[in-house]
Amino acid sequence: MRTESKIIGLGLIAAFTAATPAFSQELTLESLKAENAFVFNTLLFLIGGFLVMFMAAGFAMLEAGLVRSKNTSMQCLKNISLYSVAGIMYWALGYSLMYTGVEGGFIGSFMPYVWPAAGEINPGDYSVGSDWFFQMVFAAATASIVSGTVAERIKLWPFLLFTVILTGMIYPIAGSWKWGGGWLDTMGFQDFAGSTLVHSVGGWAALTGAIILGARKGRFGPGGQVTPMPGSNIPLATLGTFILWLGWFGFNGGSQLALGDNINASDISRIFINTNLSAAGGVIAVIVLLQLIYKKVDVTMALNGALAGLVSITAEPLMPSPLYAILIGAVGGTIVVFAVPMLDKLKIDDVVGAIPVHLLAGIWGTMIVPLTNPDASIIIQATGVGAYAAFTIIASTIIWYAMKVTIGIRVSEEDEYLGLDKAEVGVEAYPEFASGRV
Amino acid sequence: MRTESKIIGLGLIAAFTAATPAFSQELTLESLKAENAFVFNTLLFLIGGFLVMFMAAGFAMLEAGLVRSKNTSMQCLKNISLYSVAGIMYWALGYSLMYTGVEGGFIGSFMPYVWPAAGEINPGDYSVGSDWFFQMVFAAATASIVSGTVAERIKLWPFLLFTVILTGMIYPIAGSWKWGGGWLDTMGFQDFAGSTLVHSVGGWAALTGAIILGARKGRFGPGGQVTPMPGSNIPLATLGTFILWLGWFGFNGGSQLALGDNINASDISRIFINTNLSAAGGVIAVIVLLQLIYKKVDVTMALNGALAGLVSITAEPLMPSPLYAILIGAVGGTIVVFAVPMLDKLKIDDVVGAIPVHLLAGIWGTMIVPLTNPDASIIIQATGVGAYAAFTIIASTIIWYAMKVTIGIRVSEEDEYLGLDKAEVGVEAYPEFASGRV
Amino acid sequence: MRTESKIIGLGLIAAFTAATPAFSQELTLESLKAENAFVFNTLLFLIGGFLVMFMAAGFAMLEAGLVRSKNTSMQCLKNISLYSVAGIMYWALGYSLMYTGVEGGFIGSFMPYVWPAAGEINPGDYSVGSDWFFQMVFAAATASIVSGTVAERIKLWPFLLFTVILTGMIYPIAGSWKWGGGWLDTMGFQDFAGSTLVHSVGGWAALTGAIILGARKGRFGPGGQVTPMPGSNIPLATLGTFILWLGWFGFNGGSQLALGDNINASDISRIFINTNLSAAGGVIAVIVLLQLIYKKVDVTMALNGALAGLVSITAEPLMPSPLYAILIGAVGGTIVVFAVPMLDKLKIDDVVGAIPVHLLAGIWGTMIVPLTNPDASIIIQATGVGAYAAFTIIASTIIWYAMKVTIGIRVSEEDEYLGLDKAEVGVEAYPEFASGRV
Repeated sequence: MRTESKIIGLGLIAAFTAATPAFSQELTLESLKAENAFVFNTLLFLIGGFLVMFMAAGFAMLEAGLVRSKNTSMQCLKNISLYSVAGIMYWALGYSLMYTGVEGGFIGSFMPYVWPAAGEINPGDYSVGSDWFFQMVFAAATASIVSGTVAERIKLWPFLLFTVILTGMIYPIAGSWKWGGGWLDTMGFQDFAGSTLVHSVGGWAALTGAIILGARKGRFGPGGQVTPMPGSNIPLATLGTFILWLGWFGFNGGSQLALGDNINASDISRIFINTNLSAAGGVIAVIVLLQLIYKKVDVTMALNGALAGLVSITAEPLMPSPLYAILIGAVGGTIVVFAVPMLDKLKIDDVVGAIPVHLLAGIWGTMIVPLTNPDASIIIQATGVGAYAAFTIIASTIIWYAMKVTIGIRVSEEDEYLGLDKAEVGVEAYPEFASGRV
Repeated sequence: MRTESKIIGLGLIAAFTAATPAFSQELTLESLKAENAFVFNTLLFLIGGFLVMFMAAGFAMLEAGLVRSKNTSMQCLKNISLYSVAGIMYWALGYSLMYTGVEGGFIGSFMPYVWPAAGEINPGDYSVGSDWFFQMVFAAATASIVSGTVAERIKLWPFLLFTVILTGMIYPIAGSWKWGGGWLDTMGFQDFAGSTLVHSVGGWAALTGAIILGARKGRFGPGGQVTPMPGSNIPLATLGTFILWLGWFGFNGGSQLALGDNINASDISRIFINTNLSAAGGVIAVIVLLQLIYKKVDVTMALNGALAGLVSITAEPLMPSPLYAILIGAVGGTIVVFAVPMLDKLKIDDVVGAIPVHLLAGIWGTMIVPLTNPDASIIIQATGVGAYAAFTIIASTIIWYAMKVTIGIRVSEEDEYLGLDKAEVGVEAYPEFASGRV
Repeated sequence: MRTESKIIGLGLIAAFTAATPAFSQELTLESLKAENAFVFNTLLFLIGGFLVMFMAAGFAMLEAGLVRSKNTSMQCLKNISLYSVAGIMYWALGYSLMYTGVEGGFIGSFMPYVWPAAGEINPGDYSVGSDWFFQMVFAAATASIVSGTVAERIKLWPFLLFTVILTGMIYPIAGSWKWGGGWLDTMGFQDFAGSTLVHSVGGWAALTGAIILGARKGRFGPGGQVTPMPGSNIPLATLGTFILWLGWFGFNGGSQLALGDNINASDISRIFINTNLSAAGGVIAVIVLLQLIYKKVDVTMALNGALAGLVSITAEPLMPSPLYAILIGAVGGTIVVFAVPMLDKLKIDDVVGAIPVHLLAGIWGTMIVPLTNPDASIIIQATGVGAYAAFTIIASTIIWYAMKVTIGIRVSEEDEYLGLDKAEVGVEAYPEFASGRV
């Protein structure tokens, strides 16, 4: 998803095509090569896109498994709804805001994007429709991050309204700064597939939400004691993590943006390897640390270790050697082990652990890019991290507060006790099993 | 999956290849272009095919989540068995009946199809084996639709026998009329990926089954009261819906039938966008309507809204603008909101809501094609819808009745009360949890 | 995955490329054809690889569903951990041991493999990184097979230590004999995608583990009575089976090793068909036999029938006709029906049925190759099966025993009674539901 790699990939093609128009009726070596590359690049976006689309299911299962059963239906409803909202908003507004005419600036166009009609030749090196699909599922992923943190006490409609603004404006504007060719891209900020653009942005939005919403009732006692509220369905959370891991091959691999030649195909393979090994490093670091510290290995921490490894490598999945990928992921996992209890001490109630996984590991992944990518500088990376922090915190805070003082964002205390499934959805997740023990 | 688009796509190739035989040993620009297109087209069928194959898991999870826990193992058994039956029947009979020598007629050949041996050159523009795989998974999807509606009271073997006939004869014969180049194709009927051919056919078969089987005991009281029988596992149903949504990119995208050039790759991208947005439109319409009408948002209706949106766009996922796609899906979702209580009034017991989703939204999607596709006419669309209705209702009724009066199709009242898992499977779905509350 | 098919596929290319260097800057028909083939072959490995990677989720769900709820979190933890261990070990050691310089021998190199750097041209016919990814997920699958059999009584860390050695040494050394071009390949042993190399190797390792660990407490009574310990979540086990079935298209299809021309694309399509039909044959055989013998159709046996069908066809998914594929799978399913009670009589406690499915069906699939592949001989197939048995049994026994007498491999009797989730993980899988009934 970084501009550079794409230019490199297409530069090779350009060297061959030179003055030959790409899709003339005349069949030449150059036109055939260009058309093949077009199909390969489009296929990369479509395959990458459906893998990332499936991450919506991954988030849904992860969150459905990590909330209590009285809020599980609500979590399912939020996830299918947010994915729907994200698609419509990113079509109506987001894609143009992020990619049209940013040119070193801070924001794109408010005019909706129009792609070729059915049966029409699409000029360029890939189908713009496939690019929209690939970018849209990233917007949805950003919203999914928020969903997990604010679970079990937020009302449905304020959450969806926040999603409207997040996927239609906050994420696209922030994204335009780098991937739309905006000011941070001009400056040289590096974020290959979105440790910052997707994961930290989602993480900041989640963090502000968690703080403004407040913790679940009974979670933090007056004397500093923390009441665990264990997830109701661990295999679902495990499934969700595996689906996310699968989807990440599309997330990072597709962000190479081109597939049609030897170098791009090889680079994508390298990205697959590093993505996989970083997640593995995250898991191994977590389970070893938990064994050493607690003598038991909490499986939900291991799952979050995988995700933290994935987030950590996302800013630069191409340049590191496999060994570096493992180490980068291992640090991500380590962050999870120590940040989860830290958040408890700060009385920030992050239901699924999204803040350590997406925000903190996202920052870590972004800051470590200069270690392996000579085009990156620590100062510019820090500038980017800071800019995204400032913008997302401010924008999110305004939205959360505006909703809080008008329509309200939190369910009533009785509804929270009763569970959102009965209160807002009217459908229990497991009507035959749940003992009501909470 | 419509003949037209394929001819367009391959027409382009034909213009280039002209008199050059495609896979001669001589390497020419034309032969290379043709071989690349062959691989791309085959890859489209294989990728589309495995995505649609995974829809078998989607249906299984959707249905397993929406039945009561005492019938969940049975629903799992039916789904893995029907997918197996569909594969064998579509190999032994279905594919030939649907695609061999239909030429404007009503039925193909009863001779089993033979595709190239291992290591053999496959003449033509795509691997016929990949086409078989892609078409087979559609036949399986048709059977899955029936499975959900008739759940919780049908016996295993009659259901599988119906599946034998549905996937080996009813669906293929019906399919031959349009996709096999039969009389409805000649007439100009339009159904890109099967709003009618797959979803309405499955829906009519399900509806006749539901009526002939009768409702579950206790579902409809003598005074018109309706007893809800809530699904036992909402996150599984949610997972199933997301898997179906994922699979639909293969379902509709693969039905373009060709990938090897700029136009086909762009068109497939457009199909992905419209497929996604129509589903999103279905979800949003449902949740807004439920909030307005009931003040609560039933998540199972939202899931069915996504599916109704997907079914609605399936007859024509290429031509609509994204805005039309959203609206077409939104109407599909609206149909679900109003049709589900209507079926209850008619005392038709459709356990998972497959009739509104697949039958009614399928008709809607087929009838709205003329809005965006100038090649379609309302009268011919209505002719097709009516012809499929008549054929499927008659054929299904004969099969269901013939089984009813011979081997019997419904479990005994005691077995229904006990649950099919204990009565027919001998394995409880959740032996440690279920309270037996039904 | 067999050497032959690849040589055939690339032979075609070689005929065209002759003296032309593949990736020179000069664009020629030959160089364009070679580069397209490179991208197609790499894409095959990446798509096949992510499908097989997802099988890790399939195994996790299958096993999570088939163990009792008090051990479900542990099973989830083991699966995400073993997949992580497999990745790291196969990078650090396995790939080189399996593929570097085996040349008719018994073992490869201990030097870690180094693939091209980012942006570097990758000489050859496919990206070596994509090949690593594809091979790595096979190593992980081998470990997953063990995980299910030894469930519910093995300690976490000894299991992971066994996984380290299995995926880093046992599997790669065994694999080198055939796929690394070692002595069995020289001799003419045939195993297309791993009925023996993956499934029997995993099965032997599981069997030795089950014997050395001993059965779960209370499973086998002194008078020969067998206490059923039913799986806690059948829909999850069903989901796992469907995911494995999906992944198998990557497992067998990707093992063609080349996609870039008419013949390879057609052959892969044929492999998809045979893979699907063999699984279907397994299911149908099982459900018919169960109905005839027991008058009830145990869904877990049907699921294992699908898997046995898949394992059976894996040694030769290309050559059989579809009818043979169905029959080969049906025999695989039949093996499951009769082997499961046989293992109970032998007091071998295989929690998920992995020994019939992977070991016995794997042997069957390997021995039946000569029926359809004229290059295979029964004696050489038997030699291979025997060699893999001897090596894996000896190596596994040494490791299991060495751990048993040092660190111990089995949890205490109290911990087993309490459940591994409370004893070792500290997280219950379903804290709100489980009644504690075991």
